[in-house]
Amino acid sequence: MKAIGIVARPDLAQATVVRDLAVWLQERGASVWIEERTADLVDGALPASVRRAAGSEVARAADALVVLGGDGTLLAASRLLQKPTPVLGVNFGSLGFLTEVTLDELYPTLATVLDGTYRSEERRLLHAVLRRRGADHAAADVLNDVVVTKASLARIIELDVSVDGVFVSAFRADGLIVSSPTGSTAYNLAAGGPILHPALGAVVLTPISPHMLTNRPLVIRDDAVVEVRLRATREGDVHVSFDGQGSVPLESDDVVTVTRSPRTLRLVKTPDRDYFEVLRTKLKWGGPAS
Amino acid sequence: MKAIGIVARPDLAQATVVRDLAVWLQERGASVWIEERTADLVDGALPASVRRAAGSEVARAADALVVLGGDGTLLAASRLLQKPTPVLGVNFGSLGFLTEVTLDELYPTLATVLDGTYRSEERRLLHAVLRRRGADHAAADVLNDVVVTKASLARIIELDVSVDGVFVSAFRADGLIVSSPTGSTAYNLAAGGPILHPALGAVVLTPISPHMLTNRPLVIRDDAVVEVRLRATREGDVHVSFDGQGSVPLESDDVVTVTRSPRTLRLVKTPDRDYFEVLRTKLKWGGPAS
Amino acid sequence: MKAIGIVARPDLAQATVVRDLAVWLQERGASVWIEERTADLVDGALPASVRRAAGSEVARAADALVVLGGDGTLLAASRLLQKPTPVLGVNFGSLGFLTEVTLDELYPTLATVLDGTYRSEERRLLHAVLRRRGADHAAADVLNDVVVTKASLARIIELDVSVDGVFVSAFRADGLIVSSPTGSTAYNLAAGGPILHPALGAVVLTPISPHMLTNRPLVIRDDAVVEVRLRATREGDVHVSFDGQGSVPLESDDVVTVTRSPRTLRLVKTPDRDYFEVLRTKLKWGGPAS
Amino acid sequence: MKAIGIVARPDLAQATVVRDLAVWLQERGASVWIEERTADLVDGALPASVRRAAGSEVARAADALVVLGGDGTLLAASRLLQKPTPVLGVNFGSLGFLTEVTLDELYPTLATVLDGTYRSEERRLLHAVLRRRGADHAAADVLNDVVVTKASLARIIELDVSVDGVFVSAFRADGLIVSSPTGSTAYNLAAGGPILHPALGAVVLTPISPHMLTNRPLVIRDDAVVEVRLRATREGDVHVSFDGQGSVPLESDDVVTVTRSPRTLRLVKTPDRDYFEVLRTKLKWGGPAS
Repeated sequence: MKAIGIVARPDLAQATVVRDLAVWLQERGASVWIEERTADLVDGALPASVRRAAGSEVARAADALVVLGGDGTLLAASRLLQKPTPVLGVNFGSLGFLTEVTLDELYPTLATVLDGTYRSEERRLLHAVLRRRGADHAAADVLNDVVVTKASLARIIELDVSVDGVFVSAFRADGLIVSSPTGSTAYNLAAGGPILHPALGAVVLTPISPHMLTNRPLVIRDDAVVEVRLRATREGDVHVSFDGQGSVPLESDDVVTVTRSPRTLRLVKTPDRDYFEVLRTKLKWGGPAS
Repeated sequence: MKAIGIVARPDLAQATVVRDLAVWLQERGASVWIEERTADLVDGALPASVRRAAGSEVARAADALVVLGGDGTLLAASRLLQKPTPVLGVNFGSLGFLTEVTLDELYPTLATVLDGTYRSEERRLLHAVLRRRGADHAAADVLNDVVVTKASLARIIELDVSVDGVFVSAFRADGLIVSSPTGSTAYNLAAGGPILHPALGAVVLTPISPHMLTNRPLVIRDDAVVEVRLRATREGDVHVSFDGQGSVPLESDDVVTVTRSPRTLRLVKTPDRDYFEVLRTKLKWGGPAS
Repeated sequence: MKAIGIVARPDLAQATVVRDLAVWLQERGASVWIEERTADLVDGALPASVRRAAGSEVARAADALVVLGGDGTLLAASRLLQKPTPVLGVNFGSLGFLTEVTLDELYPTLATVLDGTYRSEERRLLHAVLRRRGADHAAADVLNDVVVTKASLARIIELDVSVDGVFVSAFRADGLIVSSPTGSTAYNLAAGGPILHPALGAVVLTPISPHMLTNRPLVIRDDAVVEVRLRATREGDVHVSFDGQGSVPLESDDVVTVTRSPRTLRLVKTPDRDYFEVLRTKLKWGGPAS
Repeated sequence: MKAIGIVARPDLAQATVVRDLAVWLQERGASVWIEERTADLVDGALPASVRRAAGSEVARAADALVVLGGDGTLLAASRLLQKPTPVLGVNFGSLGFLTEVTLDELYPTLATVLDGTYRSEERRLLHAVLRRRGADHAAADVLNDVVVTKASLARIIELDVSVDGVFVSAFRADGLIVSSPTGSTAYNLAAGGPILHPALGAVVLTPISPHMLTNRPLVIRDDAVVEVRLRATREGDVHVSFDGQGSVPLESDDVVTVTRSPRTLRLVKTPDRDYFEVLRTKLKWGGPAS
């Protein structure tokens, strides 16, 4: 018997989907785990045998995870997973880069998960460590990006970047994005970075509004070790953020190290939608000639 | 008898220049006013007849102002001026967009100020008003730019922009720069904006890392009234900053209005250096073919 | 009695519009002039009293000109006009920057032309002259842009640019666009240039794929005289093109001069659509918050 | 006994270097092969035992190749090589991305080649095939890039791009660059593409002045098969060029296929200069903080 976890965006409007989904899964012999705030959305309406638990417990118990919401919800849910559990991301309305399954496709795709015939795609995570005065201060695995950025009061920050111990450049900029291929279509794209195909073992370093106009996004192998050191600055607040969801203030000479994580995220795919179709739709490129 | 004011960058290394300059000016019959922190740099070494005063008093008394330092020092000094006093900006080392006079050129150029034969260039200022719940909350004249920008913790902000009361666009971005021609070579350039020639009566609206990839810098007449309204955001800190030197936190529905200021800044020019030469040197474009 | 000219795109699918339009105009007492290839589209179906003539004759006779097609058709038609005749541009399907009137809006808008209550917008033209060995070799008025560009065989060209006789820079690039505000949303935008509002008296110089990464679009007053000189090149073919519709091969040391033309184009506007709405629609920026 | 080939830029000013180099090599027991046009530069001044031959013969005979000139000369010389012969690129004046050895470093570096202790870096080549009506029409190995681009008369071309048989997008643009990591700092950079580290097994597809503003450079694995098909166009001349050195006119429906070549180029490195130092110097990024 398969255990299926369900996590929804906290303000999901169509909450009845959660109940319908639980019922559908139980009818097909699955055990259902629902994250507790998600359960709150539908309250008394859930079948009695549904288990309600904290997100981390749902993540531990589930053989597959259904995420209802947008890319942000999926990013948050993926941080709970300690193993490559298949994740099925469902969007409500507009297609997401990560939540590419529509409500119409939910049940047919979920059927392939239950019978084991589903297609999936591995997305590599990055591992970031913040070192302060020689000791580890914080760490995180990210799916999208590690961003070092100034507060609105500071005009510019200076970052010394090295790759595998070799000095690359001192960036004077609003900040620096270290992005995975998955993250390349998120903040990186807004900051002028390129799109990296998910099958590519690479990260891209994209300076944000660099003072030096010849600074350009730099794409390197993802098994390289990227070090970003914050130079002493009187101007104050600088932060590092992980997938845009947690943030730690930095001090002068703090070093953020990024390299490939051993972990991956396994995204369940619909049978008929490929990466480039998602890209064309999200970026409004238009389809093939008729 | 002409009154000449002197303001230097607070950490100016070559402070003896201040003393030499004061002596040189007095020998040529000028009365000399020195901003008090500038006077501190050289302390007892100044001639007795030099007047030492607060910056605002120096600005009021001076027929011409000599600024020793970089573009930041000149920006700060220009905020003190209430009239179009000629300003001579001297750089120490690398040419500035505003401080284009070198130490070698200081005395010959100053001689043209004393005898009234100097060349100068008017730079238009912008006038910014922050309105909160229908009332004026803050105001400033700027030479470079008015910037609305997020704190490092926020991922994105939403700004509704209109020009002369006509809706332009809702920008989802890290922020928005409203820049004068003078400011176009500062932060605007780092954010991907174009260069505006100083003789052009225009401002440029440049979104910072816009989420919508088709957003582009927009150049409009500087007598237009630009309104930037911050949409309600749960994500927190957003600020408006004026020439990068003062900053005010914004609340939801705050409106920042920018239009042409009646004030201008009069920059004293060296006889032999034109705008494009400064541009080529700063941006390392190289000179004409030999 | 008003004379109305009609020019359509040569391959216009909905040619019956031409006939309907002619009938509608005659019923309202207008005399109708139809460009001859446009007349061919509907052939025998036209009322007998419609005058059929060469484009230049239609342009001369017409008190107002209706252009059916896209922006390219309007650009071509506008080259025929020697005076500021109002031009009403109708698009079939997708909104154009110049042809902003839809088929639905055609008759109501045309009614305002007939009764003289129409709104219009002046668009400034640029005047380009190609000088070779000291003599005028070719000249053109353009609405959008003057483009100097390499053939596909050449890798790069070198252009010396000056403004009002002052050297700006030597551009090593695929080419250079000198664009009016109207043209700023055409090729200039693809090459990375900014949007210039049509009310701004400016031109933008945008290098195409410049070798020097610090080269940036430069916006100057449109009463300035821009000179673009092609340096000697062994690499061969370089051309100058006018509104993308005519092209002249260049020789080494040829000089293309661009300045404001005394001519303008008068575009008829629909009552309810402003410039920024067209911009938002064409660039898919989305509308105001609901 | 080692055979060393010498190829120089045809218009090399410091031709005595060729003679000195030949003498130096013979004194150290090497046999010297000089490409015939290079030999013409120094004419009678060469030692009698130096062999003078066509470029292809020099390439076949040489155990290592010394290239005197810029990156263009090295690109041309590398096309002659059928095996991974070490290539030592010497620049005269300004550092090249490929010719990173200065004249001062030539002899010490060459000594490491003669005694077999030299360091080198493999650069991957791409293999391009032009297919017309189902048959191979032309083919080339490139170090930098394959470029499909319009002639100056055409305004825009349309290209259908697929990767591994999956449709990516129809690009409406001035052209498309398919670049290796080595080529990423050449034309790709001018067109707005990112920098790819040479150790990365990737290619980047960069549209040139794309009409669709959301088109962005796309980085994919270099073992993917990229297909670029030219749509029917009435507008005329389109070409494909290989490393900017050879060019073939394209017809409608021609397909250019690019994938990784089995060949590599082996660049001899100076002991003290790493990739990022070359990058910083060429792009004027500045060095580490003092």
